[in-house]
Amino acid sequence: MSLTESSAADVAKAASLASSRLAILSNDSRNEALTALHHALSENKDVILKANARDVEIATTAVKKGDLSESVLKRLDLSRPGKYNDMLQGILSVRDLEDPVGKVTLRTLLDDGLTLEKVSCPIGVLLIIFEARPEVIANIAALSIKSGNAAILKGGKESTESFIAISNVISNAIASTRVPGSSIQLVKTRDAVSSLLDQDSLIDLVIPRGSNELVRFVKNNTRIPVLGHADGLCSAYLHADADSDIAVNVILDSKTDYPAACNSLETLLVHQDTLETVFPLVVQALIGKGVTLRCDSSSKSALEKVLPIEQLKFVQSSREADYNTEFLDLILAVKTIPSTPLPTAAVESAIAHINSHSSKHTDIILTSSKDLADLFMNSVDSAGVFWNASTRFADGMRYGFGTEVGISTNKIHSRGPVGLDGLTIYKYKIRGNGHRAGDYHEGDGGKTWKHINLPLE
Amino acid sequence: MSLTESSAADVAKAASLASSRLAILSNDSRNEALTALHHALSENKDVILKANARDVEIATTAVKKGDLSESVLKRLDLSRPGKYNDMLQGILSVRDLEDPVGKVTLRTLLDDGLTLEKVSCPIGVLLIIFEARPEVIANIAALSIKSGNAAILKGGKESTESFIAISNVISNAIASTRVPGSSIQLVKTRDAVSSLLDQDSLIDLVIPRGSNELVRFVKNNTRIPVLGHADGLCSAYLHADADSDIAVNVILDSKTDYPAACNSLETLLVHQDTLETVFPLVVQALIGKGVTLRCDSSSKSALEKVLPIEQLKFVQSSREADYNTEFLDLILAVKTIPSTPLPTAAVESAIAHINSHSSKHTDIILTSSKDLADLFMNSVDSAGVFWNASTRFADGMRYGFGTEVGISTNKIHSRGPVGLDGLTIYKYKIRGNGHRAGDYHEGDGGKTWKHINLPLE
Repeated sequence: MSLTESSAADVAKAASLASSRLAILSNDSRNEALTALHHALSENKDVILKANARDVEIATTAVKKGDLSESVLKRLDLSRPGKYNDMLQGILSVRDLEDPVGKVTLRTLLDDGLTLEKVSCPIGVLLIIFEARPEVIANIAALSIKSGNAAILKGGKESTESFIAISNVISNAIASTRVPGSSIQLVKTRDAVSSLLDQDSLIDLVIPRGSNELVRFVKNNTRIPVLGHADGLCSAYLHADADSDIAVNVILDSKTDYPAACNSLETLLVHQDTLETVFPLVVQALIGKGVTLRCDSSSKSALEKVLPIEQLKFVQSSREADYNTEFLDLILAVKTIPSTPLPTAAVESAIAHINSHSSKHTDIILTSSKDLADLFMNSVDSAGVFWNASTRFADGMRYGFGTEVGISTNKIHSRGPVGLDGLTIYKYKIRGNGHRAGDYHEGDGGKTWKHINLPLE
Repeated sequence: MSLTESSAADVAKAASLASSRLAILSNDSRNEALTALHHALSENKDVILKANARDVEIATTAVKKGDLSESVLKRLDLSRPGKYNDMLQGILSVRDLEDPVGKVTLRTLLDDGLTLEKVSCPIGVLLIIFEARPEVIANIAALSIKSGNAAILKGGKESTESFIAISNVISNAIASTRVPGSSIQLVKTRDAVSSLLDQDSLIDLVIPRGSNELVRFVKNNTRIPVLGHADGLCSAYLHADADSDIAVNVILDSKTDYPAACNSLETLLVHQDTLETVFPLVVQALIGKGVTLRCDSSSKSALEKVLPIEQLKFVQSSREADYNTEFLDLILAVKTIPSTPLPTAAVESAIAHINSHSSKHTDIILTSSKDLADLFMNSVDSAGVFWNASTRFADGMRYGFGTEVGISTNKIHSRGPVGLDGLTIYKYKIRGNGHRAGDYHEGDGGKTWKHINLPLE
């Protein structure tokens, strides 16, 4: 079946109606649905892993032919140790989080008998488009239900089999609960995306999870707001005063813990004064894990002086494009930050490089100075700015948010790992007793505002 | 001078650089600039009002010829009583608000020596496009500086003279402060919009203030997120049990206090049981203020029975389009909600009408029942949902936010009156001591997360 414009509208309308019912469902009812979802995905693990194995088999062939990247294959594979369990655990973590709906975050006495409240509520209808990563379906379903949003999910062709298996399990599980069946709709046809992107009067937010190309395609083809999970071009700046153990540990983990992830390190900025001290130690650890370095001339010359000859094959000359590349692989671009009389000037030079090259995802500094770390963290315009800690911590689970919808490199609404909060908005409620705005004015007989903050509970 | 693509990029680059410097400027420095701005606009009131009078003169001629609507003229006129003073007072109100930058809203101990903080920060670079309403320039400049954002402003042709006069005063005022000169750039050329909308790598948010056509044009022509201030199609639902004095006061104020405003009432839904009780009282008060009613057949018949003959010229038959129209004038669409055995069913019918017709701006209910009011406020999907209070309260000043950027009918980031909070986002800071993400795993030797909430300070 092809999803025509009218059926896209039907899907969106069904989601919109479901969202009105979801919006007034209690937290207990939403939690019951998550328990049912967890149970069903746990019971059907074998079926789902078998379906996933078929996707992995096809993808493995494609990788061998050079038609698909190794990183997509890694993201696709649900049998990777711990992955399925993490997915299941994620659903329970989300269920056990505080109810994000109905939180009063502002309460103001405007005047006697006239109060204003700012109250959190679901966004409405979400459209989530993703490529590989089949576990995203379960994550998103859990987050959407918990936050009272209806979701329309569209998977990529690499994960077709996994997607169908998981979607059947989810639909059956929800059918047994008070959550409306159309709260989670899984769209299987390939041509659905464009017509869904036209439904801006019914769909409130699009979340593309996948390549930068997908994100740009979506942004270019819709009036619906887009929560973009684009590239992860993360950088580390190794300052002159960095502790060598900390530098080695953090950079090695950032680059090699899971190179296919968006929060992995892609560019290393090295202060000139570390070129013959800490930097070679970092590089030897990286080479030990098979990392190839694409170096500017200063850092390359320094390495050529100190590295044993058999390691030099891991050291290549960089081109400018390397500093704009998300390798998602065991490759690291290296650039030297020249020494400056004032240490802040070197940090500012690193900041300038990062602000003009990074994807505003996560960038870190290695330094012993709290002041320089603060300067870096306040000035780097990225969702995550870390001091002496791995880029790999940029993750919703690690932050304690339960599972995540994705990592946003947007500058509005939700930034960094998007958890439940990112799927809510708020409304303003006023309760009065016949109050008229026209009564509040300067001059004779005009009323004045009280604007007194009231306790939130 | 025409603003070509390259000069649009220059403007955006200058704004982006200014935003990096603004981001680390203290609240005191930003406040000093606001004091200077207030002083300069106060000193130059005569010059600005003279320029505005020229715009008003041209617009008045255009209204007479039928080329411009009365409502645009009203929005344009800065000499309207209290308007200039409100503009000046708005700047001081914004200055005296709490610093929105650097607020820590989450602090989590991830593990020993590893802490996560969520800290508010400016969005970066804003592009604000507006039509009439010259006071918006001062509002936006104040809000942008206070929140540490750089802003590019583009005004409409109706306010050209006012815009030039105010922009000169603002530029001179800022030049004397520590706020970078390019923090507020005023673009005067007409062809600038399209090329600025292309600068999605440098501009973080577009805020169109004006007609629905402008908002749609902007949304259709940019990848930059848009904070849309679209139509204000506000509705009131008059339930059977509403107090008649409250109903008359609130509906009259909602419709007639300032009909050209987006928070004015456009549709009245009347419960069938009020047609011969409260409704005629409301209508007589409205007709007393010159309001024409476009009624469905039930409400029209009811009025024909009770109104004196000379008032019947204010009662017309409605067409379906009237329920989707923002009149911005002394016209009100009226629709009857049939009686139902259960009162909740009538409220749900009103909710369904509103959710499918309103612009998600502000909708109100008149009822004596707290339960029905709660049902209405939880189910109506609008930025403002009020009980027994005028739609006209939907306003940043009235909410106590200082002045406002606009009223957002978006479902993400910022909804309703957008004040300072809507111009900030947040970043995540992690401070560690060489922590590696790879150390946290299940099984032998794996570390576990603490995820302990720490006090915010």
